[in-house]
Amino acid sequence: MPEAAARTEPEVPEAFQDLLDAPVAVLATVGASGRPQLSAIWFLAEDGQLGTSLNTVRQKAENLRRDPACTLFILDPSGYRYLEIRADAELIPDPDYAYAGRLGAKYGGMDLHQMDKPGEVRVAVRLHPARIRAVNMADGQ
Amino acid sequence: MPEAAARTEPEVPEAFQDLLDAPVAVLATVGASGRPQLSAIWFLAEDGQLGTSLNTVRQKAENLRRDPACTLFILDPSGYRYLEIRADAELIPDPDYAYAGRLGAKYGGMDLHQMDKPGEVRVAVRLHPARIRAVNMADGQ
Repeated sequence: MPEAAARTEPEVPEAFQDLLDAPVAVLATVGASGRPQLSAIWFLAEDGQLGTSLNTVRQKAENLRRDPACTLFILDPSGYRYLEIRADAELIPDPDYAYAGRLGAKYGGMDLHQMDKPGEVRVAVRLHPARIRAVNMADGQ
Repeated sequence: MPEAAARTEPEVPEAFQDLLDAPVAVLATVGASGRPQLSAIWFLAEDGQLGTSLNTVRQKAENLRRDPACTLFILDPSGYRYLEIRADAELIPDPDYAYAGRLGAKYGGMDLHQMDKPGEVRVAVRLHPARIRAVNMADGQ
């Protein structure tokens, strides 16, 4: 990621940083038809850099390749706060599962090889935030 | 909703019906720029009909008016199962807060008037599912 891009990306407010340790986030991509497609994902916040690991056979990986505009959503388990992180996804080949290994380490040493069939390919997905909304649901809907 | 439409809508599988009682869902709409926009919402599953109540000043209400293609996402608090409900939203005026009242009843009798300013308008949002994915995360990503 270029240095210049890093300096201009918005950051998660201090009072919502705890949500970055959540076990699960929701990733929204846009399908070919224009409809949003959502999945629960394992994710990693590593030195302020948000990302995940995807097997390229997954529809969401195909969507991100066609249209990198996506949104990562992290809900406080209490159900009253959330982070909506509108971002552009950068797909980075991860042939030796280096990134997948760091993601797996967050999840008790989960080995992502075990989820993939022979010949399948995995990418690291780096999320470059364009806008971050930190919301308290008590404000209504 | 026309009878014919009701007959062709997909249904939530029996083994995932419990998720319809969750307190919070995530609603994804598409912004004018084409990027998905996500919010946590209170929602109601009423006789198999999914919906929510929105103040029309909200961005998501404006998005749905422009593009009714949306997705409702319900995550099992255990974090290992979820429902992704791709739907088309129908916005129905709710001037007397009849629908808002039924939604509020699910949440301990919450009065949605208290969240709105004088003169603001509320709509009932009926979701007509086009496709329902019931997913177990153990299948990988």
